[in-house]
Amino acid sequence: MNKPELITSIAAMREASRRAKQSGTVALVPTMGALHEGHFSLVRAARAACDVVIVSIFVNPMQFGPNEDFERYPRALEADLKMLEEEQVNFVFVPERGEMYPSGETGTLVEVQHIGSRLDGAFRLGHFRGVATVVAKLFHITLPDVAFFGQKDAAQVAVLRAMVRDLNFPLKLIVCPTVREPDGLAMSSRNRYLTVIERAQSLVLYRALSKAHTEVHGGVRDADKLRDTMTRVMKGEPAAETEYVEVVDPDTLLPIEDVSEGALLAIAARVGGTRLIDNVLLPPMRNGLCG
Amino acid sequence: MNKPELITSIAAMREASRRAKQSGTVALVPTMGALHEGHFSLVRAARAACDVVIVSIFVNPMQFGPNEDFERYPRALEADLKMLEEEQVNFVFVPERGEMYPSGETGTLVEVQHIGSRLDGAFRLGHFRGVATVVAKLFHITLPDVAFFGQKDAAQVAVLRAMVRDLNFPLKLIVCPTVREPDGLAMSSRNRYLTVIERAQSLVLYRALSKAHTEVHGGVRDADKLRDTMTRVMKGEPAAETEYVEVVDPDTLLPIEDVSEGALLAIAARVGGTRLIDNVLLPPMRNGLCG
Repeated sequence: MNKPELITSIAAMREASRRAKQSGTVALVPTMGALHEGHFSLVRAARAACDVVIVSIFVNPMQFGPNEDFERYPRALEADLKMLEEEQVNFVFVPERGEMYPSGETGTLVEVQHIGSRLDGAFRLGHFRGVATVVAKLFHITLPDVAFFGQKDAAQVAVLRAMVRDLNFPLKLIVCPTVREPDGLAMSSRNRYLTVIERAQSLVLYRALSKAHTEVHGGVRDADKLRDTMTRVMKGEPAAETEYVEVVDPDTLLPIEDVSEGALLAIAARVGGTRLIDNVLLPPMRNGLCG
Repeated sequence: MNKPELITSIAAMREASRRAKQSGTVALVPTMGALHEGHFSLVRAARAACDVVIVSIFVNPMQFGPNEDFERYPRALEADLKMLEEEQVNFVFVPERGEMYPSGETGTLVEVQHIGSRLDGAFRLGHFRGVATVVAKLFHITLPDVAFFGQKDAAQVAVLRAMVRDLNFPLKLIVCPTVREPDGLAMSSRNRYLTVIERAQSLVLYRALSKAHTEVHGGVRDADKLRDTMTRVMKGEPAAETEYVEVVDPDTLLPIEDVSEGALLAIAARVGGTRLIDNVLLPPMRNGLCG
Protein backbone atom coordinates (compact mmCIF):
# COMPACT_ATOMS: atom_id res chain seq x y z
CA MET A 1 0.00 0.00 0.00
CA ASN A 2 1.45 3.34 -1.05
CA LYS A 3 1.31 6.50 1.01
CA PRO A 4 -0.84 9.14 -0.67
CA GLU A 5 1.05 11.93 -2.39
CA LEU A 6 0.54 15.27 -0.64
CA ILE A 7 0.01 18.14 -3.10
CA THR A 8 -0.32 21.79 -2.15
CA SER A 9 -0.17 23.65 -5.48
CA ILE A 10 -3.01 23.96 -7.96
CA ALA A 11 -0.68 23.49 -10.93
CA ALA A 12 0.78 20.25 -9.54
CA MET A 13 -2.65 18.91 -8.62
CA ARG A 14 -4.05 19.57 -12.08
CA GLU A 15 -1.02 18.00 -13.71
CA ALA A 16 -1.38 14.89 -11.54
CA SER A 17 -5.09 14.68 -12.37
CA ARG A 18 -4.46 15.08 -16.08
CA ARG A 19 -1.95 12.23 -15.97
CA ALA A 20 -4.31 10.06 -13.94
CA LYS A 21 -7.19 10.63 -16.36
CA GLN A 22 -5.16 9.27 -19.24
CA SER A 23 -5.28 5.79 -17.78
CA GLY A 24 -8.46 5.69 -15.74
CA THR A 25 -11.23 7.39 -13.84
CA VAL A 26 -10.65 9.99 -11.15
CA ALA A 27 -12.67 10.43 -7.94
CA LEU A 28 -12.71 13.53 -5.76
CA VAL A 29 -13.74 13.53 -2.11
CA PRO A 30 -13.82 17.20 -1.07
CA THR A 31 -13.49 17.72 2.69
CA MET A 32 -12.65 20.41 5.23
CA GLY A 33 -10.50 17.93 7.16
CA ALA A 34 -11.01 16.83 10.77
CA LEU A 35 -11.89 13.56 9.15
CA HIS A 36 -14.28 11.04 10.68
CA GLU A 37 -15.99 7.82 9.64
CA GLY A 38 -18.41 9.76 7.43
CA HIS A 39 -15.50 10.96 5.32
CA PHE A 40 -13.93 7.53 5.23
CA SER A 41 -17.15 6.01 3.93
CA LEU A 42 -16.90 8.49 1.02
CA VAL A 43 -13.26 7.57 0.44
CA ARG A 44 -14.12 3.86 0.36
CA ALA A 45 -16.97 4.45 -2.09
CA ALA A 46 -14.58 6.46 -4.25
CA ARG A 47 -11.97 3.72 -4.05
CA ALA A 48 -14.52 1.13 -5.15
CA ALA A 49 -15.79 3.22 -8.06
CA CYS A 50 -12.69 4.84 -9.55
CA ASP A 51 -9.06 4.14 -10.44
CA VAL A 52 -7.57 7.17 -8.74
CA VAL A 53 -8.84 8.82 -5.54
CA ILE A 54 -8.14 12.44 -4.59
CA VAL A 55 -9.12 13.74 -1.16
CA SER A 56 -9.03 17.52 -0.82
CA ILE A 57 -8.70 19.17 2.58
CA PHE A 58 -9.47 22.88 2.61
CA VAL A 59 -11.30 24.88 5.24
CA ASN A 60 -12.95 27.32 2.86
CA PRO A 61 -13.21 30.78 4.44
CA MET A 62 -15.74 31.86 1.81
CA GLN A 63 -18.46 29.55 3.13
CA PHE A 64 -18.28 30.85 6.70
CA GLY A 65 -20.23 33.92 7.76
CA PRO A 66 -18.54 36.71 9.72
CA ASN A 67 -19.92 35.42 13.03
CA GLU A 68 -19.37 31.76 12.30
CA ASP A 69 -16.68 29.34 13.39
CA PHE A 70 -14.06 29.66 10.63
CA GLU A 71 -11.26 30.48 13.07
CA ARG A 72 -12.01 27.69 15.51
CA TYR A 73 -13.16 25.09 12.97
CA PRO A 74 -11.25 21.91 13.90
CA ARG A 75 -7.96 21.43 12.04
CA ALA A 76 -6.22 18.09 12.39
CA LEU A 77 -4.03 17.79 9.31
CA GLU A 78 -1.42 15.43 10.72
CA ALA A 79 -3.99 13.00 12.08
CA ASP A 80 -6.00 13.30 8.84
CA LEU A 81 -3.00 12.43 6.69
CA LYS A 82 -2.08 9.53 8.94
CA MET A 83 -5.58 8.09 8.70
CA LEU A 84 -5.70 8.56 4.93
CA GLU A 85 -2.57 6.37 4.64
CA GLU A 86 -4.76 3.42 5.61
CA GLU A 87 -7.31 4.20 2.91
CA GLN A 88 -5.44 3.72 -0.35
CA VAL A 89 -5.86 7.32 -1.38
CA ASN A 90 -3.65 8.41 -4.29
CA PHE A 91 -3.51 12.16 -3.71
CA VAL A 92 -4.31 14.47 -0.84
CA PHE A 93 -4.74 18.04 -2.06
CA VAL A 94 -4.15 20.54 0.75
CA PRO A 95 -3.91 24.06 -0.69
CA GLU A 96 -3.13 27.09 1.44
CA ARG A 97 -5.74 29.82 1.57
CA GLY A 98 -3.53 32.06 -0.61
CA GLU A 99 -3.31 29.37 -3.26
CA MET A 100 -7.09 29.16 -3.55
CA TYR A 101 -7.79 32.88 -3.11
CA PRO A 102 -4.63 34.69 -4.24
CA SER A 103 -6.18 38.14 -4.03
CA GLY A 104 -7.73 37.51 -0.63
CA GLU A 105 -11.18 36.75 -1.96
CA THR A 106 -12.57 35.60 -5.25
CA GLY A 107 -13.97 38.10 -7.72
CA THR A 108 -16.07 35.42 -9.41
CA LEU A 109 -19.00 33.79 -7.66
CA VAL A 110 -21.07 30.75 -8.45
CA GLU A 111 -24.57 31.29 -7.16
CA VAL A 112 -27.23 28.58 -7.11
CA GLN A 113 -30.32 30.75 -6.93
CA HIS A 114 -33.40 29.78 -4.91
CA ILE A 115 -32.18 26.35 -3.72
CA GLY A 116 -29.09 28.01 -2.25
CA SER A 117 -31.19 30.25 -0.02
CA ARG A 118 -33.31 27.49 1.49
CA LEU A 119 -32.77 25.36 4.65
CA ASP A 120 -29.24 26.12 5.86
CA GLY A 121 -28.95 28.76 3.15
CA ALA A 122 -31.72 30.75 4.84
CA PHE A 123 -29.79 30.84 8.12
CA ARG A 124 -26.20 30.98 6.83
CA LEU A 125 -26.38 33.85 4.31
CA GLY A 126 -23.89 33.41 1.51
CA HIS A 127 -22.89 29.96 2.77
CA PHE A 128 -23.89 28.05 -0.33
CA ARG A 129 -22.41 30.70 -2.62
CA GLY A 130 -19.11 29.94 -0.87
CA VAL A 131 -19.67 26.20 -1.15
CA ALA A 132 -20.63 26.30 -4.85
CA THR A 133 -17.72 28.57 -5.71
CA VAL A 134 -15.07 26.52 -3.94
CA VAL A 135 -16.45 23.23 -5.25
CA ALA A 136 -16.42 24.64 -8.81
CA LYS A 137 -12.78 25.58 -8.25
CA LEU A 138 -11.94 22.13 -6.86
CA PHE A 139 -13.69 20.45 -9.80
CA HIS A 140 -11.63 22.53 -12.25
CA ILE A 141 -8.41 21.76 -10.38
CA THR A 142 -8.87 18.04 -9.84
CA LEU A 143 -10.96 17.22 -12.97
CA PRO A 144 -12.89 14.36 -11.37
CA ASP A 145 -15.12 11.94 -13.24
CA VAL A 146 -17.03 11.36 -10.03
CA ALA A 147 -17.29 13.44 -6.85
CA PHE A 148 -18.50 12.10 -3.52
CA PHE A 149 -20.58 13.93 -0.92
CA GLY A 150 -22.38 12.91 2.26
CA GLN A 151 -26.15 12.85 2.63
CA LYS A 152 -25.75 14.47 6.03
CA ASP A 153 -25.29 17.81 4.21
CA ALA A 154 -28.60 17.38 2.37
CA ALA A 155 -29.01 21.01 1.38
CA GLN A 156 -25.44 21.11 0.10
CA VAL A 157 -26.22 18.04 -1.99
CA ALA A 158 -29.25 19.77 -3.52
CA VAL A 159 -27.22 22.91 -4.25
CA LEU A 160 -24.33 21.02 -5.86
CA ARG A 161 -26.63 18.78 -7.89
CA ALA A 162 -28.27 21.93 -9.27
CA MET A 163 -24.89 23.50 -9.99
CA VAL A 164 -23.57 20.45 -11.82
CA ARG A 165 -26.76 20.18 -13.86
CA ASP A 166 -27.17 23.89 -14.64
CA LEU A 167 -23.53 24.50 -15.57
CA ASN A 168 -23.06 21.11 -17.31
CA PHE A 169 -20.05 20.07 -15.23
CA PRO A 170 -18.61 16.94 -16.91
CA LEU A 171 -18.88 14.68 -13.87
CA LYS A 172 -21.24 12.65 -11.70
CA LEU A 173 -22.09 13.30 -8.07
CA ILE A 174 -22.46 10.31 -5.81
CA VAL A 175 -24.11 10.84 -2.45
CA CYS A 176 -23.34 8.41 0.38
CA PRO A 177 -25.54 7.71 3.41
CA THR A 178 -24.98 9.54 6.67
CA VAL A 179 -22.69 7.64 9.03
CA ARG A 180 -23.82 7.62 12.66
CA GLU A 181 -22.33 6.91 16.03
CA PRO A 182 -23.71 3.73 17.68
CA ASP A 183 -26.30 5.82 19.57
CA GLY A 184 -27.50 7.55 16.36
CA LEU A 185 -25.63 10.89 16.43
CA ALA A 186 -24.70 11.86 12.87
CA MET A 187 -20.92 12.02 12.45
CA SER A 188 -19.68 15.60 12.04
CA SER A 189 -16.38 17.37 12.46
CA ARG A 190 -18.24 19.86 14.65
CA ASN A 191 -19.12 17.10 17.14
CA ARG A 192 -15.61 17.78 18.49
CA TYR A 193 -16.95 21.03 19.92
CA LEU A 194 -19.46 19.23 22.14
CA THR A 195 -18.98 18.66 25.86
CA VAL A 196 -20.07 15.29 27.22
CA ILE A 197 -23.34 16.81 28.38
CA GLU A 198 -23.97 18.59 25.08
CA ARG A 199 -23.11 15.38 23.24
CA ALA A 200 -25.99 13.66 25.05
CA GLN A 201 -28.35 16.60 24.46
CA SER A 202 -27.49 16.54 20.74
CA LEU A 203 -29.14 13.16 20.34
CA VAL A 204 -32.48 14.96 20.28
CA LEU A 205 -32.08 15.61 16.52
CA TYR A 206 -31.80 11.90 15.84
CA ARG A 207 -34.69 11.13 18.21
CA ALA A 208 -36.93 13.64 16.45
CA LEU A 209 -36.07 12.28 13.00
CA SER A 210 -36.46 8.68 14.17
CA LYS A 211 -39.87 9.38 15.69
CA ALA A 212 -41.07 10.94 12.43
CA HIS A 213 -39.53 8.13 10.42
CA THR A 214 -41.37 5.59 12.55
CA GLU A 215 -44.63 7.43 11.90
CA VAL A 216 -43.95 7.24 8.17
CA HIS A 217 -43.42 3.50 8.51
CA GLY A 218 -46.75 3.43 10.35
CA GLY A 219 -48.46 5.05 7.36
CA VAL A 220 -48.32 8.81 8.02
CA ARG A 221 -47.91 10.81 4.81
CA ASP A 222 -48.95 14.25 6.00
CA ALA A 223 -45.92 16.52 6.20
CA ASP A 224 -47.47 18.85 8.80
CA LYS A 225 -48.02 15.95 11.13
CA LEU A 226 -44.39 14.89 10.75
CA ARG A 227 -43.19 18.47 11.34
CA ASP A 228 -45.33 18.63 14.49
CA THR A 229 -43.89 15.37 15.72
CA MET A 230 -40.31 16.50 15.20
CA THR A 231 -40.97 19.93 16.72
CA ARG A 232 -42.52 18.30 19.80
CA VAL A 233 -39.50 16.03 20.31
CA MET A 234 -37.13 18.98 19.81
CA LYS A 235 -39.02 21.00 22.44
CA GLY A 236 -38.45 18.16 24.89
CA GLU A 237 -34.75 19.09 24.97
CA PRO A 238 -34.51 22.68 26.22
CA ALA A 239 -30.74 22.77 25.60
CA ALA A 240 -31.37 22.47 21.85
CA GLU A 241 -32.26 25.72 20.12
CA THR A 242 -34.05 24.70 16.92
CA GLU A 243 -33.18 26.61 13.74
CA TYR A 244 -35.47 24.74 11.40
CA VAL A 245 -37.62 21.59 11.30
CA GLU A 246 -38.56 20.92 7.70
CA VAL A 247 -40.21 18.40 5.40
CA VAL A 248 -39.14 19.32 1.89
CA ASP A 249 -38.60 18.10 -1.63
CA PRO A 250 -35.00 16.83 -1.60
CA ASP A 251 -34.19 18.46 -4.97
CA THR A 252 -35.82 21.88 -4.64
CA LEU A 253 -35.75 22.06 -0.82
CA LEU A 254 -39.27 23.52 -0.99
CA PRO A 255 -41.80 22.48 1.68
CA ILE A 256 -44.16 19.71 0.65
CA GLU A 257 -47.51 18.63 2.03
CA ASP A 258 -47.34 14.88 1.47
CA VAL A 259 -44.32 12.60 1.61
CA SER A 260 -45.63 9.84 -0.68
CA GLU A 261 -43.39 10.92 -3.56
CA GLY A 262 -40.32 11.07 -1.36
CA ALA A 263 -39.18 13.71 1.09
CA LEU A 264 -36.32 15.08 3.10
CA LEU A 265 -36.93 15.40 6.82
CA ALA A 266 -34.36 17.90 8.02
CA ILE A 267 -33.47 19.57 11.30
CA ALA A 268 -30.92 22.18 12.33
CA ALA A 269 -30.37 23.18 15.93
CA ARG A 270 -27.77 24.69 18.20
CA VAL A 271 -26.60 22.86 21.28
CA GLY A 272 -24.32 25.01 23.42
CA GLY A 273 -22.60 27.11 20.79
CA THR A 274 -22.53 24.31 18.25
CA ARG A 275 -24.71 24.23 15.15
CA LEU A 276 -25.82 20.69 14.29
CA ILE A 277 -27.77 19.38 11.31
CA ASP A 278 -29.26 16.00 10.54
CA ASN A 279 -31.81 14.57 8.14
CA VAL A 280 -33.60 11.48 6.87
CA LEU A 281 -34.19 10.98 3.17
CA LEU A 282 -37.47 9.22 2.41
CA PRO A 283 -37.68 7.55 -1.01
CA PRO A 284 -40.90 7.62 -3.03
CA MET A 285 -43.36 5.16 -1.50
CA ARG A 286 -45.23 2.64 -3.61
CA ASN A 287 -48.40 0.84 -2.52
CA GLY A 288 -48.24 2.36 0.91
CA LEU A 289 -44.88 0.75 1.64
CA CYS A 290 -41.97 2.85 2.80
CA GLY A 291 -38.55 2.02 1.36
CA MET B 1 -11.20 18.57 -46.60
CA ASN B 2 -13.96 17.12 -44.46
CA LYS B 3 -17.24 18.81 -43.76
CA PRO B 4 -17.54 19.72 -40.08
CA GLU B 5 -19.81 17.47 -38.03
CA LEU B 6 -22.93 19.30 -36.87
CA ILE B 7 -23.83 18.48 -33.26
CA THR B 8 -26.92 19.70 -31.45
CA SER B 9 -26.97 17.70 -28.20
CA ILE B 10 -24.82 18.38 -25.16
CA ALA B 11 -24.22 14.67 -24.55
CA ALA B 12 -22.99 14.08 -28.12
CA MET B 13 -20.80 17.17 -28.05
CA ARG B 14 -19.15 16.18 -24.78
CA GLU B 15 -18.59 12.64 -26.02
CA ALA B 16 -16.97 13.95 -29.23
CA SER B 17 -14.75 16.28 -27.19
CA ARG B 18 -13.72 13.53 -24.82
CA ARG B 19 -12.72 11.35 -27.75
CA ALA B 20 -10.85 14.22 -29.41
CA LYS B 21 -8.91 15.00 -26.22
CA GLN B 22 -7.51 11.49 -26.09
CA SER B 23 -5.40 12.13 -29.16
CA GLY B 24 -4.80 15.87 -29.17
CA THR B 25 -5.68 19.37 -28.11
CA VAL B 26 -9.13 20.87 -28.48
CA ALA B 27 -9.96 24.48 -29.39
CA LEU B 28 -13.30 26.19 -28.83
CA VAL B 29 -14.44 29.26 -30.75
CA PRO B 30 -17.70 30.36 -29.10
CA THR B 31 -19.90 32.49 -31.36
CA MET B 32 -23.47 33.70 -31.69
CA GLY B 33 -23.38 32.99 -35.43
CA ALA B 34 -23.91 35.53 -38.22
CA LEU B 35 -20.24 34.85 -38.84
CA HIS B 36 -17.86 37.40 -40.35
CA GLU B 37 -14.13 37.73 -40.93
CA GLY B 38 -13.56 38.45 -37.24
CA HIS B 39 -14.89 35.00 -36.40
CA PHE B 40 -12.90 33.37 -39.18
CA SER B 41 -9.69 34.90 -37.86
CA LEU B 42 -10.45 33.15 -34.56
CA VAL B 43 -11.14 29.88 -36.35
CA ARG B 44 -7.85 30.09 -38.23
CA ALA B 45 -5.93 30.86 -35.03
CA ALA B 46 -7.63 27.86 -33.42
CA ARG B 47 -6.78 25.66 -36.40
CA ALA B 48 -3.13 26.69 -36.19
CA ALA B 49 -2.89 26.09 -32.44
CA CYS B 50 -4.91 22.92 -31.84
CA ASP B 51 -5.62 19.49 -33.28
CA VAL B 52 -9.40 19.71 -33.14
CA VAL B 53 -11.51 22.84 -33.62
CA ILE B 54 -15.05 23.26 -32.29
CA VAL B 55 -17.12 26.29 -33.27
CA SER B 56 -20.22 26.83 -31.17
CA ILE B 57 -23.15 28.86 -32.47
CA PHE B 58 -25.68 29.86 -29.84
CA VAL B 59 -27.56 33.12 -29.49
CA ASN B 60 -27.65 33.17 -25.71
CA PRO B 61 -30.88 34.72 -24.45
CA MET B 62 -29.41 35.15 -20.96
CA GLN B 63 -26.98 37.84 -22.07
CA PHE B 64 -29.65 40.06 -23.66
CA GLY B 65 -31.57 42.55 -21.56
CA PRO B 66 -35.38 42.75 -21.80
CA ASN B 67 -35.19 45.76 -24.15
CA GLU B 68 -32.28 44.49 -26.21
CA ASP B 69 -32.12 42.83 -29.60
CA PHE B 70 -32.35 39.11 -28.77
CA GLU B 71 -35.35 38.55 -31.04
CA ARG B 72 -33.92 40.35 -34.03
CA TYR B 73 -30.26 39.39 -33.52
CA PRO B 74 -29.08 38.17 -36.96
CA ARG B 75 -29.39 34.40 -37.49
CA ALA B 76 -27.76 32.94 -40.58
CA LEU B 77 -27.18 29.32 -39.73
CA GLU B 78 -27.16 27.92 -43.27
CA ALA B 79 -24.70 30.51 -44.52
CA ASP B 80 -22.59 30.08 -41.37
CA LEU B 81 -22.36 26.32 -41.83
CA LYS B 82 -21.52 26.71 -45.49
CA MET B 83 -18.68 29.11 -44.72
CA LEU B 84 -17.34 26.90 -41.94
CA GLU B 85 -16.97 24.08 -44.47
CA GLU B 86 -14.10 26.07 -45.99
CA GLU B 87 -12.35 26.44 -42.65
CA GLN B 88 -11.39 22.91 -41.67
CA VAL B 89 -13.53 22.97 -38.56
CA ASN B 90 -14.11 19.57 -36.95
CA PHE B 91 -17.32 20.20 -35.05
CA VAL B 92 -20.02 22.85 -35.12
CA PHE B 93 -22.04 22.80 -31.91
CA VAL B 94 -25.49 24.34 -32.42
CA PRO B 95 -27.69 23.61 -29.40
CA GLU B 96 -31.31 24.66 -29.23
CA ARG B 97 -32.29 27.04 -26.46
CA GLY B 98 -34.08 24.22 -24.62
CA GLU B 99 -30.93 22.08 -24.68
CA MET B 100 -28.92 24.82 -22.97
CA TYR B 101 -31.68 26.03 -20.62
CA PRO B 102 -34.02 23.06 -20.15
CA SER B 103 -36.07 24.75 -17.45
CA GLY B 104 -36.36 28.00 -19.37
CA GLU B 105 -33.63 29.77 -17.48
CA THR B 106 -30.67 28.66 -15.46
CA GLY B 107 -30.88 28.46 -11.69
CA THR B 108 -27.11 28.77 -11.35
CA LEU B 109 -25.29 31.97 -12.23
CA VAL B 110 -21.63 32.76 -12.69
CA GLU B 111 -21.02 36.34 -11.66
CA VAL B 112 -17.74 38.14 -12.22
CA GLN B 113 -18.08 40.87 -9.64
CA HIS B 114 -16.80 44.42 -10.19
CA ILE B 115 -15.24 43.86 -13.63
CA GLY B 116 -18.57 42.56 -14.89
CA SER B 117 -20.33 45.82 -14.03
CA ARG B 118 -17.89 48.12 -15.81
CA LEU B 119 -17.88 49.45 -19.41
CA ASP B 120 -20.61 47.54 -21.26
CA GLY B 121 -21.59 45.90 -17.97
CA ALA B 122 -22.61 49.30 -16.63
CA PHE B 123 -25.00 49.85 -19.54
CA ARG B 124 -26.17 46.30 -20.18
CA LEU B 125 -27.20 45.16 -16.69
CA GLY B 126 -26.76 41.42 -16.24
CA HIS B 127 -25.10 41.09 -19.64
CA PHE B 128 -21.80 39.73 -18.40
CA ARG B 129 -23.53 37.43 -15.93
CA GLY B 130 -25.22 35.90 -18.95
CA VAL B 131 -21.94 35.75 -20.86
CA ALA B 132 -19.96 34.21 -18.00
CA THR B 133 -22.67 31.65 -17.30
CA VAL B 134 -23.07 30.48 -20.88
CA VAL B 135 -19.32 30.39 -21.47
CA ALA B 136 -18.86 28.31 -18.32
CA LYS B 137 -21.50 25.93 -19.69
CA LEU B 138 -19.82 25.79 -23.11
CA PHE B 139 -16.44 25.14 -21.50
CA HIS B 140 -17.90 22.23 -19.51
CA ILE B 141 -19.61 20.83 -22.60
CA THR B 142 -16.73 21.13 -25.09
CA LEU B 143 -13.78 20.71 -22.66
CA PRO B 144 -11.38 22.91 -24.63
CA ASP B 145 -7.67 23.22 -23.95
CA VAL B 146 -7.75 26.66 -25.55
CA ALA B 147 -10.65 29.04 -26.19
CA PHE B 148 -10.53 31.93 -28.66
CA PHE B 149 -12.14 35.35 -28.28
CA GLY B 150 -11.93 38.62 -30.18
CA GLN B 151 -10.32 41.77 -28.80
CA LYS B 152 -13.26 43.75 -30.16
CA ASP B 153 -15.24 42.61 -27.11
CA ALA B 154 -12.60 43.96 -24.74
CA ALA B 155 -14.78 44.03 -21.65
CA GLN B 156 -15.92 40.47 -22.34
CA VAL B 157 -12.27 39.47 -22.55
CA ALA B 158 -11.56 41.04 -19.15
CA VAL B 159 -14.60 39.33 -17.62
CA LEU B 160 -13.73 35.90 -19.02
CA ARG B 161 -10.05 36.18 -18.08
CA ALA B 162 -11.15 36.91 -14.52
CA MET B 163 -13.61 34.00 -14.55
CA VAL B 164 -11.02 31.53 -15.85
CA ARG B 165 -8.46 32.69 -13.31
CA ASP B 166 -10.81 32.91 -10.30
CA LEU B 167 -12.54 29.58 -10.92
CA ASN B 168 -9.37 27.79 -12.12
CA PHE B 169 -10.85 26.65 -15.43
CA PRO B 170 -8.35 24.16 -16.93
CA LEU B 171 -7.80 26.03 -20.19
CA LYS B 172 -6.12 29.00 -21.81
CA LEU B 173 -7.83 32.00 -23.38
CA ILE B 174 -6.34 33.40 -26.56
CA VAL B 175 -7.47 36.82 -27.68
CA CYS B 176 -7.17 37.74 -31.37
CA PRO B 177 -6.98 41.26 -32.79
CA THR B 178 -10.08 43.04 -34.01
CA VAL B 179 -10.67 42.55 -37.72
CA ARG B 180 -11.75 45.68 -39.57
CA GLU B 181 -13.36 46.57 -42.87
CA PRO B 182 -10.99 48.33 -45.30
CA ASP B 183 -12.24 51.70 -44.08
CA GLY B 184 -11.64 50.82 -40.42
CA LEU B 185 -15.10 49.78 -39.19
CA ALA B 186 -14.73 46.93 -36.70
CA MET B 187 -16.38 43.76 -37.96
CA SER B 188 -19.53 42.90 -36.01
CA SER B 189 -22.60 40.80 -36.62
CA ARG B 190 -24.63 43.86 -35.66
CA ASN B 191 -23.20 45.82 -38.62
CA ARG B 192 -25.92 44.01 -40.61
CA TYR B 193 -28.45 46.25 -38.90
CA LEU B 194 -26.90 49.41 -40.36
CA THR B 195 -28.31 51.30 -43.33
CA VAL B 196 -25.79 52.65 -45.82
CA ILE B 197 -25.98 56.06 -44.21
CA GLU B 198 -25.62 54.67 -40.68
CA ARG B 199 -22.74 52.51 -41.88
CA ALA B 200 -20.89 55.71 -42.87
CA GLN B 201 -21.82 57.47 -39.62
CA SER B 202 -20.53 54.48 -37.62
CA LEU B 203 -16.99 55.16 -38.75
CA VAL B 204 -16.82 57.89 -36.13
CA LEU B 205 -15.86 55.31 -33.48
CA TYR B 206 -12.82 54.29 -35.47
CA ARG B 207 -11.94 57.93 -36.23
CA ALA B 208 -12.09 58.83 -32.53
CA LEU B 209 -9.92 55.88 -31.53
CA SER B 210 -7.46 56.54 -34.36
CA LYS B 211 -7.11 60.20 -33.42
CA ALA B 212 -6.35 59.27 -29.81
CA HIS B 213 -3.99 56.53 -30.93
CA THR B 214 -2.12 59.04 -33.09
CA GLU B 215 -1.79 61.34 -30.09
CA VAL B 216 -0.31 58.47 -28.09
CA HIS B 217 2.19 57.87 -30.86
CA GLY B 218 2.94 61.59 -30.65
CA GLY B 219 3.81 61.26 -26.98
CA VAL B 220 0.55 61.93 -25.13
CA ARG B 221 0.21 59.80 -21.97
CA ASP B 222 -2.50 61.70 -20.11
CA ALA B 223 -5.73 59.71 -20.17
CA ASP B 224 -7.97 62.74 -19.69
CA LYS B 225 -6.49 64.34 -22.77
CA LEU B 226 -7.17 61.18 -24.78
CA ARG B 227 -10.74 60.99 -23.45
CA ASP B 228 -11.27 64.62 -24.45
CA THR B 229 -9.94 63.95 -27.92
CA MET B 230 -12.21 60.97 -28.45
CA THR B 231 -15.23 62.77 -27.00
CA ARG B 232 -14.62 65.73 -29.32
CA VAL B 233 -14.47 63.48 -32.38
CA MET B 234 -17.61 61.64 -31.30
CA LYS B 235 -19.47 64.95 -30.89
CA GLY B 236 -18.61 65.74 -34.49
CA GLU B 237 -21.05 63.02 -35.58
CA PRO B 238 -24.49 63.96 -34.24
CA ALA B 239 -25.99 60.68 -35.46
CA ALA B 240 -23.83 58.79 -32.94
CA GLU B 241 -25.19 58.72 -29.40
CA THR B 242 -22.17 58.03 -27.19
CA GLU B 243 -22.65 55.58 -24.34
CA TYR B 244 -19.12 55.68 -22.97
CA VAL B 245 -15.68 56.95 -23.93
CA GLU B 246 -13.15 55.38 -21.61
CA VAL B 247 -9.45 54.96 -20.99
CA VAL B 248 -9.09 52.05 -18.60
CA ASP B 249 -6.84 49.30 -17.31
CA PRO B 250 -7.51 46.40 -19.72
CA ASP B 251 -7.66 43.83 -16.87
CA THR B 252 -9.70 45.65 -14.22
CA LEU B 253 -11.56 48.00 -16.62
CA LEU B 254 -11.01 50.78 -14.05
CA PRO B 255 -10.22 54.29 -15.33
CA ILE B 256 -6.55 55.21 -15.36
CA GLU B 257 -4.78 58.56 -15.44
CA ASP B 258 -1.74 57.69 -17.50
CA VAL B 259 -1.42 55.20 -20.35
CA SER B 260 2.33 54.51 -20.02
CA GLU B 261 1.74 51.10 -18.44
CA GLY B 262 -0.74 50.09 -21.14
CA ALA B 263 -4.38 50.99 -21.56
CA LEU B 264 -7.62 50.18 -23.26
CA LEU B 265 -9.24 53.02 -25.20
CA ALA B 266 -12.87 52.01 -25.54
CA ILE B 267 -16.01 53.54 -27.01
CA ALA B 268 -19.65 52.47 -27.14
CA ALA B 269 -22.26 54.39 -29.10
CA ARG B 270 -25.62 53.94 -30.77
CA VAL B 271 -26.06 54.77 -34.42
CA GLY B 272 -29.67 54.57 -35.44
CA GLY B 273 -30.96 51.81 -33.21
CA THR B 274 -27.72 49.87 -33.33
CA ARG B 275 -25.30 49.62 -30.43
CA LEU B 276 -21.67 49.57 -31.58
CA ILE B 277 -18.45 49.10 -29.63
CA ASP B 278 -14.82 49.44 -30.60
CA ASN B 279 -11.49 49.79 -28.82
CA VAL B 280 -7.74 50.06 -29.14
CA LEU B 281 -5.45 48.16 -26.81
CA LEU B 282 -2.24 50.05 -25.99
CA PRO B 283 0.63 47.90 -24.73
CA PRO B 284 2.93 49.16 -21.96
CA MET B 285 5.29 51.76 -23.40
CA ARG B 286 9.00 51.67 -22.74
CA ASN B 287 11.36 54.63 -23.20
CA GLY B 288 8.59 56.77 -24.52
CA LEU B 289 7.96 54.49 -27.49
CA CYS B 290 4.52 53.18 -28.19
CA GLY B 291 4.25 49.56 -29.31
